[in-house]
Amino acid sequence: MAIGEFDLIKRYFEVPAIRHACTQLGIGDDCALLNIPNGYQLAVTTDTMVEHVHFFADVDPQQLGHKLLAVNLSDLAAMGAEPIAVTLAMSLPRVDEQWLASFSTGFKNLARQYHLDLIGGDTTAGPLTLTVQALGLIPSGQALLRSTAKIGDLIYLSGNIGNAGLGLKIQQGYVCANPEQPLYSLHTPQPRIALGQALRNIASSCIDISDGLAADLGHILQKSAVGAILEWDKLRLSAEVRQYIYDTGDWQMPLTAGDDYELCFTVPRQLKSQLDNTCVCIGEIQTQPGLRLLRDGHQTLFQVKGYEHFT
Amino acid sequence: MAIGEFDLIKRYFEVPAIRHACTQLGIGDDCALLNIPNGYQLAVTTDTMVEHVHFFADVDPQQLGHKLLAVNLSDLAAMGAEPIAVTLAMSLPRVDEQWLASFSTGFKNLARQYHLDLIGGDTTAGPLTLTVQALGLIPSGQALLRSTAKIGDLIYLSGNIGNAGLGLKIQQGYVCANPEQPLYSLHTPQPRIALGQALRNIASSCIDISDGLAADLGHILQKSAVGAILEWDKLRLSAEVRQYIYDTGDWQMPLTAGDDYELCFTVPRQLKSQLDNTCVCIGEIQTQPGLRLLRDGHQTLFQVKGYEHFT
Repeated sequence: MAIGEFDLIKRYFEVPAIRHACTQLGIGDDCALLNIPNGYQLAVTTDTMVEHVHFFADVDPQQLGHKLLAVNLSDLAAMGAEPIAVTLAMSLPRVDEQWLASFSTGFKNLARQYHLDLIGGDTTAGPLTLTVQALGLIPSGQALLRSTAKIGDLIYLSGNIGNAGLGLKIQQGYVCANPEQPLYSLHTPQPRIALGQALRNIASSCIDISDGLAADLGHILQKSAVGAILEWDKLRLSAEVRQYIYDTGDWQMPLTAGDDYELCFTVPRQLKSQLDNTCVCIGEIQTQPGLRLLRDGHQTLFQVKGYEHFT
Repeated sequence: MAIGEFDLIKRYFEVPAIRHACTQLGIGDDCALLNIPNGYQLAVTTDTMVEHVHFFADVDPQQLGHKLLAVNLSDLAAMGAEPIAVTLAMSLPRVDEQWLASFSTGFKNLARQYHLDLIGGDTTAGPLTLTVQALGLIPSGQALLRSTAKIGDLIYLSGNIGNAGLGLKIQQGYVCANPEQPLYSLHTPQPRIALGQALRNIASSCIDISDGLAADLGHILQKSAVGAILEWDKLRLSAEVRQYIYDTGDWQMPLTAGDDYELCFTVPRQLKSQLDNTCVCIGEIQTQPGLRLLRDGHQTLFQVKGYEHFT
């Protein structure tokens, strides 16, 4: 870690004490030190957010701080991991104290919720770019992978879908009678940490919905070398999303919009009774490759790709 | 990890197989999975490099790939850690295949040298910003900290100093008869991984020289609540650095220039025989706070701060 930025990190990101039992040494030396308990594996993920790409200059910095951490924790949730620590690398055009105070509040509030330590970081001058790396624990051998869905497994979603996508449509000009919830879903996603851990011995595969249900489920299908059928009528949609589809005819939005950060997972049929009813069965893993959609009595092949940065 | 960039990462950064025994799962799922052997602690560090701040557009991409990884490995070296895995978050203005091929070559060649796996990453469009997080192992309780130097300990450097600083002066216009070695030191630093591990049961404190000897030794002094005397005559300087000082009178350069990535460490007197003669004793830890320099028979308080991004 570079040195000059200790004061900056200290002022905005320091918390009174170490929170997690794994943390032996946090910010302030060449490295942080973590104790990894015997019998556990370490899960590691990293995500970057860039101004003008992932957010705009007028973003609420507190929501940005929350979301940056939330999208990384969501990757841990999708593996069934318990978050233990994060690092934060920030490139900042200038030191805007008000912005930093608000950003760090959003970041720290979510970190506190999961007893996470910010164990390191790097702060440099430069275009506004924010990278988090999140570390988590999983009992050895219990990680939820993308590659282990089996034919006949049921496909589940952890809640309703399309709310964040609707939030984006609202930002782009769609007039919604109740915009608060969709905008909240877009800006303040809640990583499904508890559910991910609860699924450890139930789900056969899992992914979080960052790029859209069709694209993310597509990754499970590809990695597991299987296909699936998805039943439109089983999707749980909010009243606002239903109204949006009625107004615009854009029924594909809940399947293709990203940023929901719900979990999509597969469950062997004999284990489905172990799920609570917040989870919604939306389809089934099949032998035939590809993602098929059953809608209005018709079955069609659904081919959608997620957001590609360089295409 | 976002999805769309798998192909990009795969094309340039994939290596044929998992290299390190700790890696169970690399790139391709929501998280990577690592096995941390019992009796070891995890060391975690992160460093960012930003175009126009840490390097310029005309930088050799292969050297940049090497240096980005090297500066992170140097932080692991300074803790006495064995590197096991890294993640790479890249924000790129465009996909420049030639640039990426060269950058990834520099990065991968150094990774191969240490049997390191690139276990994850994130690639987004945006201003050129590169963040590495490096993970390493240390036998529990054997980490080399900054805070544990003791009064009477001897201060050592792992080699000569000022070469990278001279490389920067050469880039800024200083005419050197033999510019190759200083420029190589600046662009292709070699992290002192083997030495860091060898120092585990010898050094009482350790730091790597990224911000300059005076500033980095200053961190040991501050964290350990001690002072030091540093003897100018004991510093090992290259012929080129001596010539630079003769030409310019700028004798402070080797003390204040960064980027050498040598280790500066303290050793209890009774253990000094365990060091090999590549290490140079340059001074002693003392009770009186502050860093004193003995030069030409005079002792003066030496106050220098490292590079500060926002001042």
